[in-house]
Amino acid sequence: MKHAVVLLSGGLDSATVLAIAREQGYVCHALSVDYGQRHHAELAASVRVSQALGAVEHRVINIDLTAFGGSALTDSAIAVPESPTTGIPLTYVPARNTIMLSLALAWAEVLQAQDIFLGVNAVDYSGYPDCRPEYIEAFERMANLATKAAVEGKPLKLHAPLMHLSKGEIIRRGVELGVDYCMTVSCYQADAEGRACGVCDSCRLRREGFSAAQVADPTPYRN
Amino acid sequence: MKHAVVLLSGGLDSATVLAIAREQGYVCHALSVDYGQRHHAELAASVRVSQALGAVEHRVINIDLTAFGGSALTDSAIAVPESPTTGIPLTYVPARNTIMLSLALAWAEVLQAQDIFLGVNAVDYSGYPDCRPEYIEAFERMANLATKAAVEGKPLKLHAPLMHLSKGEIIRRGVELGVDYCMTVSCYQADAEGRACGVCDSCRLRREGFSAAQVADPTPYRN
Repeated sequence: MKHAVVLLSGGLDSATVLAIAREQGYVCHALSVDYGQRHHAELAASVRVSQALGAVEHRVINIDLTAFGGSALTDSAIAVPESPTTGIPLTYVPARNTIMLSLALAWAEVLQAQDIFLGVNAVDYSGYPDCRPEYIEAFERMANLATKAAVEGKPLKLHAPLMHLSKGEIIRRGVELGVDYCMTVSCYQADAEGRACGVCDSCRLRREGFSAAQVADPTPYRN
Repeated sequence: MKHAVVLLSGGLDSATVLAIAREQGYVCHALSVDYGQRHHAELAASVRVSQALGAVEHRVINIDLTAFGGSALTDSAIAVPESPTTGIPLTYVPARNTIMLSLALAWAEVLQAQDIFLGVNAVDYSGYPDCRPEYIEAFERMANLATKAAVEGKPLKLHAPLMHLSKGEIIRRGVELGVDYCMTVSCYQADAEGRACGVCDSCRLRREGFSAAQVADPTPYRN
């Protein structure tokens, strides 16, 4: 039995990744991080997704990144952009993937799991530096110098199966695997019921993805 | 004005590092992590140390690593060894330095600081893999692919000024810089008042360090 830690945000991409990891035969331990994100509804979504897609357990770790701020997602004084911007957007959260991967690394070592899955993507993404292949490779290299498990001959492998897929391709893959995207939340300013704004970057990418995949968009929009 | 984030545990090493960073002219932002450590008294020590050694601010971030366990410091069912052991000891906390450095990375980016100081040491250390120079180099390389700041031309530098010093040399350096080691707590099973057991690995290394430095040991022992 191969065990894996799967980072699960509650969004579309990580739900697809969980389905892919399961299809590859992994016993999946889902990990979500409550970092004080504006779109807290994604955490409720992560609970639904982990159950629906067969994770054997799901942990939500709390870490208050609003103590640092510096992002539209962790500082209520910074508004979420509602039209496309150039460069790295205000929704970038400093070191978010590094923090989440470091927590996944800790749990993987305790579980004696040698695999971590995450839903980063370098195609239809938002310009975040910690979603690029060279970042993932550098994290894996660092992780294999960091842990007792790696030093003792059990190296860690990071899996980013969505890295080179478009949003439309991700959705088609998920639909093949039976993912019900209705239960996922992508919107950066989703309301408490998980209803989407329809205008933020994340909503725009998601909407275009369903259109490209020629799949009916099940997202509940409030506008 | 150069700003730096200094990881401060409340122990002997990181107190010395804060004094070194201040001597090098950095405006120091001290960061401690309450991860559910058995020796919680070190956090009270970190407050005293940050004030005494002139940090401009001090934040304590909570992250409950007892949810993962896997270490004598984060699982009350695993006893702290009271005699020297071979190999990586039970006090190793999976991915601890990676988690702490990732939090320091996040805060540094928000502060627009390009320097992080930490007290890892490869000489008189406990065999932890995430205290080795090759680990520190790999983390720095990863960090410089992770953040918006690095991508936009403001790379991060990790400083580990104790890396190649013996415990005795660290203590002599700290004494030169006016560090009062009485306010630091190293013991893995310090009591609520910060009194040391005198027999754990950390106590042993500390005691031997004062002896080698020919400095009177100010540690309050309870035995």
